Amino acid sequence: MEIERSPLARPFPQLPAIAGVTMRVTRARYKEWANEPERCDLTFAELTEGTTVAGVFTKSACASSEVELGREQVKAGRARALIVNAGNSNAFTGYRGREAVDAIQTQVSAALGCTADDVFVSSTGVIGVPLPIDKARAGITAALTAHPCTWEDAANAIGTTDTFAKGAAGSAMIGNTRVELAGIIKGSGMIAPDMATMLGYVFTDTDVAPTFLQEALNRANAATFSCITVDGDTSTSDTVLVFATGKAANARIENWDSPGADAFAAALADVCRNLAQLVVCDGEGAQKFITIRVSGAASDDSARRIGLTIANSPLVKTAIAGEDANWGRVVMAVGKAGEPADRDKLSIAFGGVWAARNGLPVEDYDEAPVSAHLKGEEIDVAVDLGLGEGRATVWTCDLTHGYIAINADYRS
Amino acid sequence: MEIERSPLARPFPQLPAIAGVTMRVTRARYKEWANEPERCDLTFAELTEGTTVAGVFTKSACASSEVELGREQVKAGRARALIVNAGNSNAFTGYRGREAVDAIQTQVSAALGCTADDVFVSSTGVIGVPLPIDKARAGITAALTAHPCTWEDAANAIGTTDTFAKGAAGSAMIGNTRVELAGIIKGSGMIAPDMATMLGYVFTDTDVAPTFLQEALNRANAATFSCITVDGDTSTSDTVLVFATGKAANARIENWDSPGADAFAAALADVCRNLAQLVVCDGEGAQKFITIRVSGAASDDSARRIGLTIANSPLVKTAIAGEDANWGRVVMAVGKAGEPADRDKLSIAFGGVWAARNGLPVEDYDEAPVSAHLKGEEIDVAVDLGLGEGRATVWTCDLTHGYIAINADYRS
Repeated sequence: MEIERSPLARPFPQLPAIAGVTMRVTRARYKEWANEPERCDLTFAELTEGTTVAGVFTKSACASSEVELGREQVKAGRARALIVNAGNSNAFTGYRGREAVDAIQTQVSAALGCTADDVFVSSTGVIGVPLPIDKARAGITAALTAHPCTWEDAANAIGTTDTFAKGAAGSAMIGNTRVELAGIIKGSGMIAPDMATMLGYVFTDTDVAPTFLQEALNRANAATFSCITVDGDTSTSDTVLVFATGKAANARIENWDSPGADAFAAALADVCRNLAQLVVCDGEGAQKFITIRVSGAASDDSARRIGLTIANSPLVKTAIAGEDANWGRVVMAVGKAGEPADRDKLSIAFGGVWAARNGLPVEDYDEAPVSAHLKGEEIDVAVDLGLGEGRATVWTCDLTHGYIAINADYRS
Repeated sequence: MEIERSPLARPFPQLPAIAGVTMRVTRARYKEWANEPERCDLTFAELTEGTTVAGVFTKSACASSEVELGREQVKAGRARALIVNAGNSNAFTGYRGREAVDAIQTQVSAALGCTADDVFVSSTGVIGVPLPIDKARAGITAALTAHPCTWEDAANAIGTTDTFAKGAAGSAMIGNTRVELAGIIKGSGMIAPDMATMLGYVFTDTDVAPTFLQEALNRANAATFSCITVDGDTSTSDTVLVFATGKAANARIENWDSPGADAFAAALADVCRNLAQLVVCDGEGAQKFITIRVSGAASDDSARRIGLTIANSPLVKTAIAGEDANWGRVVMAVGKAGEPADRDKLSIAFGGVWAARNGLPVEDYDEAPVSAHLKGEEIDVAVDLGLGEGRATVWTCDLTHGYIAINADYRS
């Protein structure tokens, strides 16, 4: 199956080298990659001693062994390596899935002279097929001696149905020390919030305590990965990990009172927002990038839930695909969200033009600028509930024939 | 736009005459009906004095005036007339929507010599355009003197994007008296549970107290209309009403201890189940009718929620459209449902063949009979949670290019 590059694809950005991080990729051949027989599908990030780590994971009740283990590993806050397998998610494979992860951890920790718990593993791809241990072993053997690769090589290697490599850079000043962040992410379908989304990795040379790193990640996650959706379907493997090598030698960030803590957290949130939006831009079949701004809700959380209900509505998504200013479907979605709403206080705008205000169509509503806006690639929907101060911004894409083609027309 | 008749369409069944009910249809011309310029879009059911009524309505926070009013009207339990407008839902039209409903109630009640509260009104179609009062008045004037019509005429007249007329019959013995039920329904998109779904009407000659009628309808609704979904999108107008004329002259059913109460409730539930399934069969773009049986859940309610999460998953729906036995997507949907689930106790079957048992792919799983099953029009998915005794059955359809075509390719 040939999947076309997303029309919303963005060029891979310049990412800084991160001292203490060495990326390598190789071919484990977890699956036959049609059209790309030689693509790499095993990624190995070697992390210097003293690297701290934080993570957020899917809330799926059917999470993979990798996720179950990762939830435990981040509690210790230490990392020496990350292995990412693409093409097989190793999810729903019971004890055999766990055996594969154990084998990988054993092999990598022996090579690096660290404990197995310091080796993080992620897998993405088909569900229900145990990860072949032989292929993993051979791949890791090759990866351990491979030449270091670029960020873009790694971003390509962790992808599955992704149509373009996705990365984002950031930096912050901690006192007089400049720290760098580099992030890569994969994901295009089975994307829904309620957790960190898909596989995303951020590397930084910042010296930061793991407890603070986790707090900063949680805060960033709430406003970024938890605010995107492609199809409302939540993966069994979603993971975002942040690794901090400490090589920038800044004064260690211990808590929110440490110098530079806010600057670092803001830079991390920026990188996470960029990565999250790139996942939406590679949404399966996406032709339009949709920003939904909800205001006037009972609370920020209520605003986010209303935004996600709109973003997940097939009728809203198809209307925007059809460039149809069908704000009635937005009303419908607000109504079904299960959150406080008053029909007669509700206002809706497309591209900054209010189509309905306080529960009534706007009398002299001019659809011409709205129609022009909807023909563009970046669509803005604003919803004001008229109830309170709660607000949230949510990002999604439209629902097109491309989504059906990718998920129905071709068989796995 | 020419929408093709659903491949899952069923012939309109033989429905019994219901003593005390006279159906009439006419042309209000609420919209231009492409390809059917002469179709009727106003339905008038005249109900004999003493008719009792019960209803269930959408839980949308943005419900139409018709729904808000109907919720109040059923409390009195009396009905003399039903008016259904097709082509304009009169939803999100503020005080002007309410004025249109008032005008209809005033005109019909004057003609029948009843109170305005005994006149039920439903409207379905585009959101955000006030129902034109002139067209409604002229239509009702014509309807009041029109010749009585058939059930099929009425089923056609209440439809909008429906591709076939939908009806179901039932009967029950109350002591020695046979009572009859006839139901019609419309709906094909914006179909999700969490309420009665779309516009459905059941007429019966049974003599039944309105309090019991409401209880029987609530019970039927929970296992039928609340267990179907097409796209997870909840309409602002969904309504199911049951009218009982009492003309069968059975011993009045007052409560669950009355003779025939169980038989009547079972007949009503049968009619509701048939009507609900017909809505799924006319799901926008539907090519397959999917039955999802969930067992072993923590409770019946939990089972229903898991079933609906599977039924609403775009990835499950597209997999079935593609005739792909992708049970990994069912695992994903169970995982995201937010209900008790244990990955290692989960079992999944297609067409009666277990693909996964207790969290592992079945060792000697033979996909051949499953593939054959998936090529059919009626698809069976079974999920066992292995946790408790909770069970539910949910019905849905697949997600195809047809859904995108109906909702995105053509503009409103």
